Parts: sequence; structure tokens; C-alpha cells
Amino acid sequence: MEGRNFLRYIFFLISIILLLIFTFLNLPSPLSHTTELLDCTTYSPWCTKPFSQHKNHYANFPKYPLDPLTIKEIQKVKKIINSIDEFSKKGYVLHSVVLEEPAKEVVVNWRKGRRLPPRKAAVVVRAVGVVHVLTVDIETGRVTRRETGDYSGYPIMTIEDMITATTAPLANADFNRSILERGVDLADLACLPIATGWYGKAEENRRVIKVQCYTMKDTINFYMRPIEGLTVLLDLDTQQVIDILDEGKNIPIPKAANTDYRFSTKKHTQKINLLKPISIEQPNGPSFTIENNHIVKWANWEFHLKPDPRAGVIISQVMIQDPDTGKIRNVMYKGFTSELFVPYMDPSDAWYFKTYMDAGEYGFGLQAMPLDPLNDCPRNAYYMDGVFVAADGTPYVRENMICVFERYAGDIGWRHAESPITGLPIREVRPKVTLVVRMAASVANYDYIVDWEFQTDGLIRAKVGLSGILMVKGSPYVNMNQVNQNEYLYGTLLSENIIGVIHDHYITFHLDMDIDGPSNNSFVKVNLQKEMTSPGESPRRSYLKAVRHVAKTEKDAQIKLKLYDPSEFHVINPNKKSRVGNPVGYKVVPGGTAASLLDHDDPPQKRGAFTNNQIWVTPYNESEQWAAGLFVYQSQGDDTLAVWSDRDRPIENKDIVVWYTLGFHHIPCQEDFPIMPTVSSSFEIKPVNFFESNPIMRIQPNSPKDLPICKASA
Amino acid sequence: MEGRNFLRYIFFLISIILLLIFTFLNLPSPLSHTTELLDCTTYSPWCTKPFSQHKNHYANFPKYPLDPLTIKEIQKVKKIINSIDEFSKKGYVLHSVVLEEPAKEVVVNWRKGRRLPPRKAAVVVRAVGVVHVLTVDIETGRVTRRETGDYSGYPIMTIEDMITATTAPLANADFNRSILERGVDLADLACLPIATGWYGKAEENRRVIKVQCYTMKDTINFYMRPIEGLTVLLDLDTQQVIDILDEGKNIPIPKAANTDYRFSTKKHTQKINLLKPISIEQPNGPSFTIENNHIVKWANWEFHLKPDPRAGVIISQVMIQDPDTGKIRNVMYKGFTSELFVPYMDPSDAWYFKTYMDAGEYGFGLQAMPLDPLNDCPRNAYYMDGVFVAADGTPYVRENMICVFERYAGDIGWRHAESPITGLPIREVRPKVTLVVRMAASVANYDYIVDWEFQTDGLIRAKVGLSGILMVKGSPYVNMNQVNQNEYLYGTLLSENIIGVIHDHYITFHLDMDIDGPSNNSFVKVNLQKEMTSPGESPRRSYLKAVRHVAKTEKDAQIKLKLYDPSEFHVINPNKKSRVGNPVGYKVVPGGTAASLLDHDDPPQKRGAFTNNQIWVTPYNESEQWAAGLFVYQSQGDDTLAVWSDRDRPIENKDIVVWYTLGFHHIPCQEDFPIMPTVSSSFEIKPVNFFESNPIMRIQPNSPKDLPICKASA
Repeated sequence: MEGRNFLRYIFFLISIILLLIFTFLNLPSPLSHTTELLDCTTYSPWCTKPFSQHKNHYANFPKYPLDPLTIKEIQKVKKIINSIDEFSKKGYVLHSVVLEEPAKEVVVNWRKGRRLPPRKAAVVVRAVGVVHVLTVDIETGRVTRRETGDYSGYPIMTIEDMITATTAPLANADFNRSILERGVDLADLACLPIATGWYGKAEENRRVIKVQCYTMKDTINFYMRPIEGLTVLLDLDTQQVIDILDEGKNIPIPKAANTDYRFSTKKHTQKINLLKPISIEQPNGPSFTIENNHIVKWANWEFHLKPDPRAGVIISQVMIQDPDTGKIRNVMYKGFTSELFVPYMDPSDAWYFKTYMDAGEYGFGLQAMPLDPLNDCPRNAYYMDGVFVAADGTPYVRENMICVFERYAGDIGWRHAESPITGLPIREVRPKVTLVVRMAASVANYDYIVDWEFQTDGLIRAKVGLSGILMVKGSPYVNMNQVNQNEYLYGTLLSENIIGVIHDHYITFHLDMDIDGPSNNSFVKVNLQKEMTSPGESPRRSYLKAVRHVAKTEKDAQIKLKLYDPSEFHVINPNKKSRVGNPVGYKVVPGGTAASLLDHDDPPQKRGAFTNNQIWVTPYNESEQWAAGLFVYQSQGDDTLAVWSDRDRPIENKDIVVWYTLGFHHIPCQEDFPIMPTVSSSFEIKPVNFFESNPIMRIQPNSPKDLPICKASA
Repeated sequence: MEGRNFLRYIFFLISIILLLIFTFLNLPSPLSHTTELLDCTTYSPWCTKPFSQHKNHYANFPKYPLDPLTIKEIQKVKKIINSIDEFSKKGYVLHSVVLEEPAKEVVVNWRKGRRLPPRKAAVVVRAVGVVHVLTVDIETGRVTRRETGDYSGYPIMTIEDMITATTAPLANADFNRSILERGVDLADLACLPIATGWYGKAEENRRVIKVQCYTMKDTINFYMRPIEGLTVLLDLDTQQVIDILDEGKNIPIPKAANTDYRFSTKKHTQKINLLKPISIEQPNGPSFTIENNHIVKWANWEFHLKPDPRAGVIISQVMIQDPDTGKIRNVMYKGFTSELFVPYMDPSDAWYFKTYMDAGEYGFGLQAMPLDPLNDCPRNAYYMDGVFVAADGTPYVRENMICVFERYAGDIGWRHAESPITGLPIREVRPKVTLVVRMAASVANYDYIVDWEFQTDGLIRAKVGLSGILMVKGSPYVNMNQVNQNEYLYGTLLSENIIGVIHDHYITFHLDMDIDGPSNNSFVKVNLQKEMTSPGESPRRSYLKAVRHVAKTEKDAQIKLKLYDPSEFHVINPNKKSRVGNPVGYKVVPGGTAASLLDHDDPPQKRGAFTNNQIWVTPYNESEQWAAGLFVYQSQGDDTLAVWSDRDRPIENKDIVVWYTLGFHHIPCQEDFPIMPTVSSSFEIKPVNFFESNPIMRIQPNSPKDLPICKASA
């Protein structure tokens, strides 16, 4: 072959190879691939189609350093794990496979167009009872980190753990007998896997769970039909029944009447149509874009958004454009719901252990089911899918797990009208439009709606709504007049034989604030102190004086909110001043301030010690992401935010993380039966001398000519 | 004339008379009537056309016992006052002319179709320096009550008081010289009338006011250009200057740059259009009706709504339909913003007295200017006008003072999805649609947006938004680096030479709760107490126990909220139990919990003592409507809610009134310059065992077929 022809041949060959590679990477995958995903017929409803309505997840590849693992990457990880004899030969369970995020500085310095930093997976794998924490380099196929440390807790349960726990007791004859004795048909049984918490030696050194059951007879709302007092202690690994506590045999199972809340089962006469159609409309389309599946750009905001099996939603690299300079400025590197703590207030045998940690025990994201378009989110919403991993390493798609939408509620961004006093003809008003990122997790009975809301004025609101179904207790009583005055019910009689037990909800947010850069922030308490005037100084005797205190170390920033000694809580960049010399910053504006009042030595409160304060500030530490510790299931509270913070590390002019806990006390009432109207609380992070002036002074008011033209549907 | 013919004649005559009367009452009034209203050319902008865009107010007549006075009724009152020699001969000023509401039992027992109870006006008239409180029977023309008691304060200023106060100092040569010395042209002057509060004997026995001025040169936002330290003490009646305090001559007047916030004055390059059009759309029309101008009916709610010159908005006879029985049930007889208290935190000469009470001093409703359609309220809003009375008795129309609209913000009323744990194919979600009643008062610089929001689940939310313009202080500094470390500025340097002074806002709501009837309610504190378990009782050491305490007397119900000793606050009807035996009730859910921390002996706090607790409960007393007392201007605090409550009257199983104070601490920041993004807080009243179960279980979800079809505007 002559030289030129040889070159032609080589060129042709390379072209074909490149074309093949390109085709392989980008074409819709052959159907055979679907066999590598969870089969919907077997795993419904937590499987989903690999081709969701939005996109072909097979063809997806990562485009940004923080992008979650793709189906292909997860399949590679599975192969790598399988290639390790220790795992493949003796069997293994994957408790978590997620992106191991590159170091913060790598992410911050990465620029579009560059090669992605090495894609790595953080893998938690359990084999022969031992938990391994691995870092797997997806490209090289190498395991670059492997730890099998002495952890006090176990990793998040797998969905398979939870499902098998609900049926395992049926293999036990004593259990079945107990059920039948209560008059319940085994076919009607619905059981729930209840994390045991940790209450001392007896339950250590093996993964255990408690199972309690309900009857589904005549209702899908089995939560309202508890088989009270029957508690099975189960070994989560062997599925063997360790113990059965069969108390409360005298307590009747509450009736099914009026418990079904489904619209489809209502008789026509029961349906109410109180309202005419109403909708948020944007006929010109939304004002946001989502680049490369994950970068949300809206108005002056920009951030990375991704689903996470543990946190639910993670927002990263939250930045806002400065209206004066046009520059994009850093606000927060990472924000997410780090942990939940839900202690019930009943110390009796069948209830004392109900002190859930929904992120670290159940996976807050794993429980975030597909959102219901038009009802969970308005018509103008965009939906994002999650890609998660089953215990055997098979990826699956959780469709419509997150929605993003613009929200106009008729609220006012700012306004001023001149009054008759001055007589000036001024009336300037700007409507408030916000961007909402939403997910809704159904952790068995309860539903948590988590919203991140962005305002054009720079404010970010984190809001948690509680709905769903109460965890109720069977009771012998049908009316309060049967209850002896000295008897305490631990809750409210909601309906005949049903008590709604008092409980708290705490949702702890991790807020890695990076005000104008990652490494130099401080936490400042601006305390409003009552100051008395000196005699003769003023006709006034008193006023409030703002006194600034910069927190030097973590203990300075363990904040218990005080109603009568109020403060603002600023995160500032002490190295950057506004034009008139104020440090630029954001403040945390508390809301949902209920505090946990359990005894600090109570085992659940030890594990939930991150709720001892509403606010904490820690120096950034890659490993301190989860407020209850890396492994929460049956943990003893030795790896919590409270423990880290007590190290009292310096936090002044450092890269710092703020933790805020939203709290709710919930005394149930009859209106919560059989399903709860949503209750919400929120807190805010809000610019404080971050901008030189009102950043939305120049936006335009609504004008009739811009609004859509609508007509009723046919 | 023969008998039959005579009868025919009489019958004919009576018919003609009736026809004439009917025509007179109902036909659009002749234009000559307009001369009896404020002339817009003279009184702009607080006059308005008698024929607003919504209705012919001349033709209006009352249809419900609580309906506000009509133009005709006001004109009759004026005639009656004029017919009293004592007033007409020596001159008088009307400070307030409003409906004297019939006794509660009369209103409650009145039924549609019956004759209205006698229409009476409550009139506050000042003549020769004496304040008279009159009840005028409009039909008979008789004054049925007349009091000239010894009041510690004066009535609400008239708009005429406020306007004349702003120009009166110009008649004083010393004042003019001081202005010129500051380099301000008299033509550029804008002055504000600042209620003096009360600080002892020196200012007693005459109506005084302080006037401070600004320059309007190069900006309409003169609030940002204070002539700092120049304070005129003025006699409000004689308009004589009593004293001029001319401090702060060394303080430059801040520049006008960047203070104008109007869209119309922005250059094209300065305008930002961040967002595509978005709108709440209801092409089938709203779901509410407003009967006879004032009875609002929406979904399961029904209430009477009216504008009020002092309170702003009054909602009365708030009732909700029980979904089980179909019956309409009483919730609240009357709800309104009773008083505001806004103390500034600067004890220096030109600032110490700034401790505004915007309802009792300025008239919160008088300052509620017309709302801006599409910006203050969404497109689907209905607007209601106010009819108020000038100092000489002339009625005028405040157009679009209140708006009513349905709000859909993409929120969730309730939801539940089953998780993989149970595998049930359930996802039931209901959207949340609410009804909002809104007004916005501009009390000089500040704008208060007051929302009453009704949810179909029975919850009522009272929300106050703060926007508008800060009251700022001139300063010699242009940068914080000029400020000595020991110097305290009483606020934040917002821009060159401008300090935003720290202040509080308190808005006290009067909530006359009538749970299932007016006369038999109790206030119950449901305290969550930490309870330790006995040794061996439980693996748990602690839990929260709900302990009910029924308040016997007023002092039992003086509630200072406690974060670490939390309670729920129920208003129950102890005589009515739910099916399972819980007393029916509503609870007050606190929010905006900032408390006033001024010294109780500080003069402004004595007058604002109603903010000493967040919650108070008083027995119903017709005369106890206004938390700071009937007459607030220069009052000494001897007629406040705190004084009434200290009588410690019995409140168990009585007709009771709950008072809730929303509080804000405001440390200004640069983002508040030159106009403030809205900050909001709200509290709720919420059913608690009022319904047998979730009252919105049967409403229907959104369905694509019901939603409107919209296209972009041309």
C-alpha cells in the first residue's frame, strides 16, 4: 500500500471507530439494556422505566463535576464491585452508591469546556456483616479508598431491607397466631419496618428492626387500623424473629369507616367542588433554563440541582448576579436536608423507640416518590428524575422526583404609595415572583414537602410542609368521657379507638455558606440589647442597641434562640466591604423554632443531639455532611454535629458551614384524621449588606399588555 | 268627591310619592351632588370621584346591620351636626364618623329580609378644644349619647391636621432661615407630621406635633434627603411654632443619586426584565361572590368585610360551613388590626419621640391608598372602595382600598403517596387555593400590607408585610472606616450620609372569637411539659406531656411566649363536644413573635403596653376595641389593653376576645435602600377538634381538562 493510501485507510478507519463510539454513547440504548434495570413487574412501584417521559437516561453522561452518577456509571461501579472477589464470592449488599464529589476547590475552579475531574463513586457496601466504605474510580476501575472502621451505627437501610422486614414475621408461627387472635386475616396484613433507634447493649452488634402491623381490610388507609401493642423484633439480616411483644390484646382495632381518602372511591354525592379552575399561567414559557440537566438559571440566580438518595435534594454552587457590577457572586456552596429527627412522646413498650431519623435510617431521597403534576406542582413546572441504585447494584429511575417552577402568588416584591400627607402622585409596586424547587418524601405514613424558594431580591427560603397520615395508637376508648381524669393518653382521641400521639419533627439543614468565596467567612451574632439611658440624657428611658459579636470558635456559635434576648445571625465575608464599609453578608432568619426538650441523656436525644441548638456553625470538613453521623441506623450518637461542634474549632475567617434546624411540636387534632392538611414552617437566608442597595429596584411592574389571554377549557 | 274616587285618588297619590322616593334613593344622583364631596382639584390625591369604577356610591344604601355609613348617611350626619348650635356657631372638626355598630346580640339575631336595626353614627367631634363623643341616630336625627369625658389623649388626627402641619412652619421666619442655612430652597421642602407621643407635663393640655423636613430636590424620594436635627414643635390647632430645635447643622444632606425608585424615570438601560409574564388565571371567573357589597362568600367561608378609617379592614361574623352537617358555624365575630406601635431605637433629641401608633394617631385606614391592579393584587382580584369623611363632614370615596382574590401559589393542601415500603399504588394530592383580603396602608414612608387569608381547611392567616421607605437619619459619615470604634450610630450606614435607624414594628390584632356561638368560650393553654420517666418504666428517659390549663381570669391569659416551655393556645367552646368528646375549638398559632423589650416605665412603652405580652384575652366589652385606648394621640397609657387586662376579670365560659401582637425587630441593611423589599410575618387561627375530621378530604384534585387554555398576549 502506498503511503497516501495508507493514510487514507487509517483516517477512514479512525472515522469509523469514532462514529461507532459516538453511536454507542449517544444513540438510544438497545432494549437488552433494560434487563440491567429493576424490572417493574417485580419491583413496582419503586422501579421505573429507564426511558422516562423526559429523557433517555441511558444516553445521559455527566457534564458537570457535581452531576450525579449516570446509569452507565452505576453499571460500571457494579462491574467493579463484582470484580472484587471478597464481595462477589461471598455476596454483598450495596447500601449507597453516589457520586463522590470532587474536592470543593476542584469544583470551584473547574470551568466549562474543560475535562471533568475524575468521576468517582462513594460506595457503601456490606459483605459478611462488615461495612466497607469505598471510593471507586469509575474510569480506572480502581478502588482508591477502602475503610472498614468501627462504626457505631449501620448504613441506611436498603429498600430491600424495608420490604423484606414487612413480610418476614409471617414466617413465624407465633406471630401469625397473634394476628389471627386479633381477628385479622393474614391476607389483610400491612406491616411497617420501624427503626429501633438505640437503647443499650441488648440490641447491639446486629442489625435489628421492629415491625408493627395494621389491617388493610376495607381501607387502603391501614395506618388508621393499628394492631396495637404487637411488636416484632426482627434480625434485619437473617429475617429471624428475635422477640414478639404482644400487649394490648384488649384494644380493639379501629373501624375502617371514613378512613379512605382517595377521590376515586368517593361516591358522587361525597365529592365537593368548591372552586372554579385556577392556574398559574406562563404562555410564553418559563423564565428559567436547566442546562445540561442540572444547572438551573433563573432571573439573577444560578445553581446546580440534583436528587440524592439520602438528602433528597442537593443544591450546590448557589450564585447570584450583582445588578451593579453584572458579576456572578457566590452565596452558598451546598444546601440540603442533612437529617430529620421525629421523636414520639409515648414511653410505653410499643412506642418508646419511635424516634425516626428519616434521612440516615430510611433515605429521605429514596422515599421521595414521583410528584403528581398539577397537584404537587403547578402546570408550569419542570420535572427532574432521580437515578438510584438497588441493593444489588442495579440502577433505577425515580421519575418526576423533583419539580422546579416559578411561583406567583399575588404577593408584592416591594411597594410605596405616597399618602395624602405629602400629596405626591406616586404608587409604585412590583409583583413578587419566585422560583421553587420541590420534592415530597413519603416516609411510610408521613409526607414531607421540601421547598427551596429563591427570590429575585436575593432571599432563599427553605420550607418544609408536613402532610400525609398520622402514626396513631389504638385505644380502648371511643369517647373522652370514658377516660379517667388521671389517665394520660399521650395524645388526642381523634376518632373512636384512635389516638394521635404527640410528636416532634426536626429537619436539620446543612448550609455551606460561601459569601463571595469559599474560604473566608465569619459568623456574627448581632445582639439587640436593651440599653437604659442615663438620667437627663433623653426623655426616653430605654432603647435597643445592636452589639456585634464575631464567633471565634464553634462553641461561640452554638445558638439557642432567645425570644427576649434577640439576635440576628450573619455570615459575613470580613475581607470584603460594601461601598460604605459594611462587611458583605447573608443572615439566617429563623422560623419553625420549636426546640427539642427531651433530656440530653435520653438515648434518642443523644442520637439527635444535633437538635440541641437551632443553629450551629462548623468549619468546613468534607466528612461532616450528615448531622446524625455517617451511619445512623442504631447509632449511639458518637458521630453527631453536637460531637463535632464540641471540638470547638476556630471558625473565624474560615470556610464555614451553618446548620439550621426547623422544628415542629405536633399535638394531633381531629382535623388530622384521616389525612393531615399541610402544616408548614420555613427559615430564610437573606442578603444583609451583600448588595449595595435594593437589588430589584429596576425590575418592571406588571402591565396588562404582557399578561396572557386565557379562556376556559372546553 | 265620592268615597271610591277619593280612595282612588289617595292610592294614586301614595303610589306617586313612593315612586318618587324610590327614584330618589336609587337613581344615579344628579351631578350637583358632587359638590358635596371633596373636590379633587383641591384635595388630590385623597379625594376621589364619587362614581368609582365599581359603583355609584350615591345610590348605595345599607343592606346589613354592619354595613359602613353610606355617602347619604354621612351627609345626613353632617346636617345633624350642623343643626346643633354649639357646633355650627363656633366651628367644629370631625375626627371620626363611622357606623356605630348595633349591639352584638342584635347583629347576631338579625335575619335577611328584616328591617335593619336603627342606623347610628359614632361621631368624634372637636369644638372649641373640647372633644365630644356622640351617637347620632341617623333616622331620627337625634343625638342619643354625648360624652365629653376627661380623656388623656386626643382623637386621630384629621388628614387636614396632617397636611397643614407640613406647611405651617413656613410661616415662621426662624424656620425658613434655618432651612436656607442648610442650603435648601424652600420650594424643595417636604415636611412630615410626626406624632409626639407623650413625655410629660410640658407638652400636655394642647395638641402638639413635631415637624421634620427633607429636600425634594432631584428626587421624589425625599425621605432619603433628611435635613437632620431640625425639629419644629407645632401647636396643631393654632399652627403656631412653639419651638425649633436646630441641631445637626454639620450633617450634610445626603445626595439624591440612586434614590428615585420609579420605573417611569429609569433609563432604558437601567430597566431589567428578568421574567416572562406569569399570572394567576381563572377564566371561568372567581369562585367567590360579594353579596350586597360586603358579604363575602367563598368555598365554605362567609364573612362581612368593610373598610374602616382607623382599623383599615374589619372582617365580621366569620363563619364556616361544616362539611358533615352542612351547617354554618361561627368562628369569629370580629377581627381587625387594632393598633400599631413602631418605636425607633435612638434616644437623641431629634429621634426619641418617634414611637408611632399608626392606627390611633394617623388612621390606618385613612392611609390605605388605592391598590395598584396587577401589582398590588393579581389579575383575578375584586376591589372594594372605602367611604370616609373629611374634617368638615364631607364624604369622599377611597377607590380600590381593599382587594379580594383567590390565591393559588402551587402549594399543597394535603397529600399522601405510598412508598416502596408498602408498594400500594397510591398518590393522592390536593392543591391549596385560598382567599385573600388585602389592603396596603402608606403611613408616610412605611407601607404595611395586611392580608387576611382563608383556607378551605378552616385556617385563617393574618399576615403583615412591611415595605416602603425607611425613616433615615442624616450622618456626617460616608464610610464606616470614619467611625470611631466607641461611637454607636443607632443603626446601619446604608449609603453615604444615611443611617437606617433600628426600630420595631408591632401590629396588635383584635380577634373576637365566637366558637360556635358568642357567649360561651374559654381560653385553654395546652402546655407541653418535659416529663421524666420513672426508673425502669421505659428505655426512654423523657417525653413531652400535654397539660391543659383553662384560664379563669385575664391574668391567667397574659401570655409571654416561651420557646423552651411551649404551649398551644386554644379558644374552645366548653359546652360543645366533638363526637369523641373533645371540646370544639380554634387555636392561635403564633408567628412574628418579636417582643417589645423597652422598659415598662419608658413613656412610649407605657402607651404601648399592649405589646408587653404577645397574647391577651379579655371578656367582650363593646368599648374595648382599640388596644392603645379610644384616644391615642398624646395619650399617657391609662386606657390600654394592659390596663383593662389588669382588672383580671373572669374569662372562663364567657364571650371572650383574643389579642395577638405580631412583632418585628428591624435592623436596616443596605438592601433596604432606597426602598425596602417586603418582609412578612403572620400568625394563624386554626381549627382544633372544631371539625370531626379533615374538612377538605372530599375536595377534588386538579385535572388537565379543567384548566384554562392560555396564549401569550399579542
